[in-house]
Amino acid sequence: MHGIDRNTITDAVIASFDAAQDGRMKEVLGALVRHLHAFAREVELRPEEWRTGIAFLTRAAAITDAGRNEFVLTSDILGLTSLTDLLQSVPGATERSVLGPFHAEGSPELPVGADLARDNTGERVLVRGRVLDLEGRPVRNATIDFWQTNAEGLYWQQDPSQQSDNLRFRMALADDGVYAFTTVRPAPYTVPYDGPVGALLRAGGRHAWRPAHFHFRVLAQGFAPLTTEVFPDDDRYIDEDAVFGVRASLAVPFVKCDSASEAAKYSLPSPFSRVEFDFRMSAAR
Amino acid sequence: MHGIDRNTITDAVIASFDAAQDGRMKEVLGALVRHLHAFAREVELRPEEWRTGIAFLTRAAAITDAGRNEFVLTSDILGLTSLTDLLQSVPGATERSVLGPFHAEGSPELPVGADLARDNTGERVLVRGRVLDLEGRPVRNATIDFWQTNAEGLYWQQDPSQQSDNLRFRMALADDGVYAFTTVRPAPYTVPYDGPVGALLRAGGRHAWRPAHFHFRVLAQGFAPLTTEVFPDDDRYIDEDAVFGVRASLAVPFVKCDSASEAAKYSLPSPFSRVEFDFRMSAAR
Repeated sequence: MHGIDRNTITDAVIASFDAAQDGRMKEVLGALVRHLHAFAREVELRPEEWRTGIAFLTRAAAITDAGRNEFVLTSDILGLTSLTDLLQSVPGATERSVLGPFHAEGSPELPVGADLARDNTGERVLVRGRVLDLEGRPVRNATIDFWQTNAEGLYWQQDPSQQSDNLRFRMALADDGVYAFTTVRPAPYTVPYDGPVGALLRAGGRHAWRPAHFHFRVLAQGFAPLTTEVFPDDDRYIDEDAVFGVRASLAVPFVKCDSASEAAKYSLPSPFSRVEFDFRMSAAR
Repeated sequence: MHGIDRNTITDAVIASFDAAQDGRMKEVLGALVRHLHAFAREVELRPEEWRTGIAFLTRAAAITDAGRNEFVLTSDILGLTSLTDLLQSVPGATERSVLGPFHAEGSPELPVGADLARDNTGERVLVRGRVLDLEGRPVRNATIDFWQTNAEGLYWQQDPSQQSDNLRFRMALADDGVYAFTTVRPAPYTVPYDGPVGALLRAGGRHAWRPAHFHFRVLAQGFAPLTTEVFPDDDRYIDEDAVFGVRASLAVPFVKCDSASEAAKYSLPSPFSRVEFDFRMSAAR
């Protein structure tokens, strides 16, 4: 008796990968098939719905290029990117958040304490803290890669009116693990919604907004690279990030300060806002 | 307390679609998110594996065009296309199988009993049967859309040496529901394996072969359109179709015949092969 029926197809597909050399690949593909089929069975997926899914992917393909990946965005708005980050969490270490599409190598090097705001308008902010290990000791020779939007919610890559490399830097830290810089408060912005993801968000009654955030990538020899975001805890979208990147530990107060000595030390107007955030790095795996 | 953690993210993503107008869409998206997250949790999906998945989709996007859809092929080789067909099964009706990429409108019209083989080489086959309803009564005014490969496993669209429209037809049936035609035996062929699906098949220890088949699309007023395939039950790949399209009821004998009268009636050499297959149509939904 040849052939497949609805009771045997899932096992048949999983068994088709039996000869895979890579055991982990076999495990992941087997689970993917099992869950994908369970989804189709549970909702009794209709042919026209299958076609809608294929059309979604085909439209995502058409809008994807070197500068935009609609598949990443799909993963983001379905929470899969954030879930993958969360599954990497190490107790006691800083929580991870999405990398996003605006990180790029080659940021200008700035010294600890530098001013990033320059001619940017907006609320002035002092950001400072330390890079620590899980025991609270300073991590030596860490570097911080940092990027943020301006006060209009735009990265320099999106906005010809900004100077190249605006509001991003790379900072090599000393043995005390201390970092500090002054900048402007970033603003919420929308993920791209002119493609199939946008259509899905609209049909799903959702918006495309992300809360404002500072984006950090912290690297140090012997430690797992850490990509994360720090959010103002009073942001309008703090509880409804379109890509589910907010973690309780990453939402922090932008504290109003009127310390004249600190303002003078960092050439800030008074009052200014202060953000204190320490990174806790876990060991490299 | 703002933010998402690994225990709350799945419910948060599902809840984000609460305002969707379309209840069915909400149901399908909710189930998709739940199963997708369950997959990631079960295998503890690693960031590099997530990137592998994104790279797969991005490569699939790059190779997809008007004539080729790597997302459909991905669905095919993971059995999702066939599962969707199987979920549509109506007891007593002919089982469905994948449409595939080689169906096109505009087939030449042929009368019942016509010869499709013409100058094609290969084993000559008489195919005949009836289009019936679930009670076994002839379906009136049915049409059959038919397409197959030649004896080298190629459709005319793939092979400049074949005449346009080779080995395909549209046939309008009389009130008795009888169809018949003569042709050549089709051959196994591979699904495209020069893209990411091919790489996945190779990494998974799988081949890209489909067993030979006749492809039918049967239409009649008042009945659900039926797309299916009929396979020679002795095909080398009958138990290992790369797209899981074989059903026990669709694998049929190619019976060797030496009836001189039948050979004469259909202008066939003797012996020839005979395939008898009745279609059972379910009511339109």
